[in-house]
This record gives sequence, C-alpha cells and structure tokens, in this order.
Amino acid sequence: MVRVLHPCVTTLVTCSGHGVDNVLAIAWAMPVSADPPMVAVSISPRRYSYGLIEETGEFVVNVVSTDMLDAVWKCGTTSGCRVDKFSLAGLEKTPSEVVKPPRIKGALASLECRVVDRIETGDHVLFVGKIVAYYVDEEAFDVMRGVWRLEKADILMHLGGRLFTRPRELVRKS
Amino acid sequence: MVRVLHPCVTTLVTCSGHGVDNVLAIAWAMPVSADPPMVAVSISPRRYSYGLIEETGEFVVNVVSTDMLDAVWKCGTTSGCRVDKFSLAGLEKTPSEVVKPPRIKGALASLECRVVDRIETGDHVLFVGKIVAYYVDEEAFDVMRGVWRLEKADILMHLGGRLFTRPRELVRKS
Repeated sequence: MVRVLHPCVTTLVTCSGHGVDNVLAIAWAMPVSADPPMVAVSISPRRYSYGLIEETGEFVVNVVSTDMLDAVWKCGTTSGCRVDKFSLAGLEKTPSEVVKPPRIKGALASLECRVVDRIETGDHVLFVGKIVAYYVDEEAFDVMRGVWRLEKADILMHLGGRLFTRPRELVRKS
Repeated sequence: MVRVLHPCVTTLVTCSGHGVDNVLAIAWAMPVSADPPMVAVSISPRRYSYGLIEETGEFVVNVVSTDMLDAVWKCGTTSGCRVDKFSLAGLEKTPSEVVKPPRIKGALASLECRVVDRIETGDHVLFVGKIVAYYVDEEAFDVMRGVWRLEKADILMHLGGRLFTRPRELVRKS
C-alpha cells in the first residue's frame, strides 16, 4: 500500500568499501532538509550496499534519465557481491569531488553525501546524508529557480515492478 | 539543490490536537518500509502542524489529484494557527477508521499513520509512521499489482515553487 506514494524519482546510489565500488537502484530517496541540504535514502539491510554505506558513511545519489532504464533495471535486479554492476550495466564512473564513491557519468545530477544519522524503519534502514558536493546538468535544471526543465530533463520515475513514468507536463499554479 | 529529487508526490497531511483538525501540504513524504508498511514525512518544526503531530503521534497522508491544486496551494501558504484551513481550502473531512485526524474526501488515497519514531534532520523533523489503516481509490490504483493507473489517477507532483507536474506517460521495462 506504500506504493500510493509512487511515482518516485529513480536514482542510482553509488557506494564504496572493501576496495570495491558498487551501485544500486533506489526509488525511496527524498530531501529532508533545505538548509543545510540533506537527503534520506531508504535501503534494505539485506542489500550488499547497505554494509558498504554502514562501513564508510558515504554515498552518492545520482538522478538518471529514461535512457538509463536498462542500466537501472540491471542494477536493481543483481547484487554487487557477485558482479561488478558498473560493467554489467554499462555505466561509467567519474570521480567525486569530496567523497570516495564515484559519480555516474551522464547522470542528470549527482549529490555527494556523508551520513549524519540513521534510523531503522521496519524492513529498511533510512540513511540521512548531508550534501557535501554536487553536480547538476544546468541545461536540464534551472539552478536559479531550483526546478527541472521538463522538456530537457527526461527524468525516470518508478511506479512499481517493471512500470515507470516520465513527467513531461507542466502544471502551473496561477 | 535538494530539489533535484523532485518531482515528489504532493500530499495533504492531516493532524489533530488542541481540539482542532489541521491540514498541511507536504511534498517530502515517501515509503520507508514495505513490511510492516511505513512512511516518513518531513515537517519543519516552525509549522503549526508539527506541534500537533508531536502531541498526538498520529497523522494521515492523503494523496491528491491535480483538481485539488488550488486547495493544496492554500494549505501550503497559510498557517492553521490562525484559520481553519479545511474551510479556507474548501476541503471536506471524512472520519478515519483508526486514528483521530480525518481523511480528506475525494483524495486518491489516505494512509492513516501512528508515529513510531522521529529524527531531526537539519531544518526539518522526519516522522516515521506505521500505516494502521488506509483507503485507496481502486479505480485509480491497481491494488493487485500495487501501481497507479496513470490514465485514471491524475496525480499532482511538486516541482518547486508554483510549478507542478502530472505523470501520464507509461514507460515499461521490456
């Protein structure tokens, strides 16, 4: 029933640990503070990436467009404990400015985060991360107004299972 | 910069306390557990509703469609400490099944929640609520598959400021 709060922006979260980088697909990510800028990501403790984030306290939230759908699907349906998901999904890394986990090349935005708190919530753990550096595609995101340009940012959002959506229609409050 | 995680489903959160009901517009709400079903809502401590939720530990997350845009805007730009926002916004209440705060009549879905935890996150507080009862419009939401029918559920999502969007285009992973 929690799916009534979908669609959610689909993200690829990168993390590093044990000498490896990993990437997982996450739809449960949202802002939780404007100043200082902070986000929360909800991750199942059964996922390989959970241990990496617990260990290092760092992650990067990458917002992706619909052209990365196949990569998202591969990242969401395999475990990094067995394979290199970057190779599997055809994703390229670029170095982050501050944290160790890499950004994903071609992402619409990348938020480098340091964990400042965590809380157990049922079958998931919520990591609260402070944004310490970021990248955003300024063609697609209007930085002055702080909003996506829907005609340029083809944001991938998860509905449930194999179903996704892309928001394209602007609704303006007069 | 946190707005790169928008668009977010726009919700009207209802709460009760001091003998009154109140309703506030919230875009920062998401699932945080599938089993048991739990959601998290991010609320500024400066908002009137914050104290009500702290006091009673109950709230209802109502998912609304674009035809409630004017009501959402009124609820998001006034404080319930001075006015009855239900009257102001032309919203009708219907009784909840389990909790004291009412559901909003005409909402696409209503999740009745009891606070099980809270965490301070910068300029907001995140309330974690366990869903104790719910309503969903089964014409608009495919309960078996757990996904919105986009052609029927005209979900209102917040981009930023006066800008919103409605997701209508289905993208299917083959």
